[in-house]
Amino acid sequence: MSTANIEKELLFKLQPALDAGVDQEVIAILDEYRAEDIAEIFWDITLDEAKYIIKTIEKPKAIETIRSLDEELQGRFFKGYTANEIATDVIAYLDSDDAVDILNLLSTRKAEEVISFLDDQDYAKNLISMLHYDDDVAGGLMAKELVKVKYNWTVSQCVEEIRKQAEEVTNVLSVYVVDDKDILKGVVSLKDIVLAKAHTSVIEITNDEYIAINAYSTGEEVASIMSKYDLTAIPVIDSMGRLIGRITIDDVVDFIKEEADRDFQLQAGLSENVESSDKVWILSRARLPWLMVGLMGGLGSSALVSGFEGDISRLPQLAFFMPIVAAMGGNAGVQSSAIIVQGLANNTLKSKNILPKLGKEFTVSLLNGLICSALLLTWNVIIGHGYDLSMVVSIALITVIIVASLLGTITPLILEKFNIDPALASGPFITTTNDVIGLGVYFLLGRMMLG
Amino acid sequence: MSTANIEKELLFKLQPALDAGVDQEVIAILDEYRAEDIAEIFWDITLDEAKYIIKTIEKPKAIETIRSLDEELQGRFFKGYTANEIATDVIAYLDSDDAVDILNLLSTRKAEEVISFLDDQDYAKNLISMLHYDDDVAGGLMAKELVKVKYNWTVSQCVEEIRKQAEEVTNVLSVYVVDDKDILKGVVSLKDIVLAKAHTSVIEITNDEYIAINAYSTGEEVASIMSKYDLTAIPVIDSMGRLIGRITIDDVVDFIKEEADRDFQLQAGLSENVESSDKVWILSRARLPWLMVGLMGGLGSSALVSGFEGDISRLPQLAFFMPIVAAMGGNAGVQSSAIIVQGLANNTLKSKNILPKLGKEFTVSLLNGLICSALLLTWNVIIGHGYDLSMVVSIALITVIIVASLLGTITPLILEKFNIDPALASGPFITTTNDVIGLGVYFLLGRMMLG
Repeated sequence: MSTANIEKELLFKLQPALDAGVDQEVIAILDEYRAEDIAEIFWDITLDEAKYIIKTIEKPKAIETIRSLDEELQGRFFKGYTANEIATDVIAYLDSDDAVDILNLLSTRKAEEVISFLDDQDYAKNLISMLHYDDDVAGGLMAKELVKVKYNWTVSQCVEEIRKQAEEVTNVLSVYVVDDKDILKGVVSLKDIVLAKAHTSVIEITNDEYIAINAYSTGEEVASIMSKYDLTAIPVIDSMGRLIGRITIDDVVDFIKEEADRDFQLQAGLSENVESSDKVWILSRARLPWLMVGLMGGLGSSALVSGFEGDISRLPQLAFFMPIVAAMGGNAGVQSSAIIVQGLANNTLKSKNILPKLGKEFTVSLLNGLICSALLLTWNVIIGHGYDLSMVVSIALITVIIVASLLGTITPLILEKFNIDPALASGPFITTTNDVIGLGVYFLLGRMMLG
Repeated sequence: MSTANIEKELLFKLQPALDAGVDQEVIAILDEYRAEDIAEIFWDITLDEAKYIIKTIEKPKAIETIRSLDEELQGRFFKGYTANEIATDVIAYLDSDDAVDILNLLSTRKAEEVISFLDDQDYAKNLISMLHYDDDVAGGLMAKELVKVKYNWTVSQCVEEIRKQAEEVTNVLSVYVVDDKDILKGVVSLKDIVLAKAHTSVIEITNDEYIAINAYSTGEEVASIMSKYDLTAIPVIDSMGRLIGRITIDDVVDFIKEEADRDFQLQAGLSENVESSDKVWILSRARLPWLMVGLMGGLGSSALVSGFEGDISRLPQLAFFMPIVAAMGGNAGVQSSAIIVQGLANNTLKSKNILPKLGKEFTVSLLNGLICSALLLTWNVIIGHGYDLSMVVSIALITVIIVASLLGTITPLILEKFNIDPALASGPFITTTNDVIGLGVYFLLGRMMLG
């Protein structure tokens, strides 16, 4: 069954029980489902129903449900709770990375208040130290919970440590080996612990060719290293080499998805992460900036076209081909920029050298421009637009495709140099620029060849 | 050090040694680097140098290097090898999922030939059974290598089985429990094995609330389930419930990235996965289809505009605002469709019900249309374009933004219904359609109000 169907089924069964308000029935139904599925139906129920569910089901499942909620839902959900409730009912039970994610949703004041209500002082200190990191660097993605052993221990001491930590660290993927100063010395896989004899010294089975990452590495770096080396977890160290946390692959998967979404949105001219379920004014606000850019570009185009008013009055047919020239420039530009943007994002753009790329882009766009222009010329002559006008349109088309492709190639590379997200270049920005340039080329050619 | 810098450094050190052809020097340099890094420099060296490296370095690292190569490089690399060499030097050493990926790159005939050279008959049979699956379903993503134990075993028998399989299964994340008919009964985490006593029965520590996936589930389903439930590995079962493989999260990460790339490309009007390093004719071929669609759309627009030749001769200023109307329609349409496409891809589009979405989209686009039109009207009146023409342009602008947004919302939903990738809708398709519709609305309004 697809996960969407699970939600539908659950909601269908649960709603009558919720309406009736019979605790035992609600518990019995929810007992059959995973926390991640319960979290999904929070989209479709009221805040009061959500609070009722969390209060009614068993504690570990309630915590897991809250943890699995979409950020937006978490934000809404916690509005109904006091700092004390958030601290003692939720944060106290979470892994530090999930706790920090939630604290980041609250105002700084409320987050501090929540932390002040925590009983476990070490945990509170951990959370405060983690809040210093941006949520898109390794320090913001990591969890403090991990199994850490000393390099001079035996395997049986390790197993004891795992036992002690077992409740706190749900997903023990490997054990980290440190020295007396907490400096990371290596990693031991659980498999090697299973296979080793109890009295073996840990250092004998430690892999010291481990990969670690600095707390200030960007999320992109973490994602690219973990996916390149196929890692399920990566230790995070501070500038002294001390082990301070670990990042697991599930958090990186979320990060990769968010990054891809952001590029997709930028390319589509959306200035913030929106979903169709967002409020009207949020949707409007996300779209307006790029519509404004389009409007400015459009005003530029009209100003430009108005400079050719005389030519248009003399030969109104010139106007017929404005849309084709403008649209093809936009299309070709977006294609070129998308290839570069994706190459930059995936780190597959091997050489940052611009000249050979422009040379290749010129060849590709000349080829495509020639094919499109030849087809257009044939069609226009057949249809009876006259050879001269048809030639102007086709020459303009080749020129525009080439210019737009070169611009599409160069713009993301320049943005990247200035540390601006190159995906910005592949959306309305390139379409708008190419509209203006394309029409300029077209009318100038028209004036020269037909005037 | 960023991974890109590692490659540069390696290449800088290695090239002189390669040129000199001193085996010992090449080995000493490559010994310092990971296979994944060595694989990256294959982009920059010749095929002969690549083969020389693979022949020279130690076998496990050579295999891992080949495994880590980008598909394109693998394809090129294997052209220089016979079926026998591929079988005995490479495939025999790989996990089944990586082996199948490589076999899929070869022609069916060569793949069969390669398999016929394998000594291990069980492994050969496994590969043949896996080749039956498409590479984007669970059966095509899974590996056959896993640790499988019987439900009536003890923990110490489990540990023995792990020891036996240890060499073949590099990343033991969990142990799968089956009955005598190989039907999956549950999963045991390595942590629980570490913590259990040797004589404990496996069934006592087995988690029977596991999530498994059918071999014919799509890659999207696998990705969405693994990321929803934060799984690092998922068992794959056949229609009888028998355990036939497992998928690890690293393969899913690659799949998620490829999916995101494909949506980005479709949106940008690229019809196949291309990189700027591809050959000119491949780049040209990927772009031509959507340029052709743009060309057709453009011809439609010109035919439409030519129907208003009389109006344009009478009032050439009408032509000034064609670009603004066309461009804004395109922008608004792409924004709307991108939100829907992303909602569909991420499964966050909670209700598939079209009407409320259209209602909301209408409100958002009316709001944005009003803002843009009001600004445009003010500007046009100030600039002296005359009140009547300015009104026509502004009314056309609102209309076009609304129509384009509604179309942008509805098109991906319809495509999805017909099992066509909705990302197709958010690219040149929507821009082109909106060009034609927008210009039609504009000129009709012009004729009605100014004619």
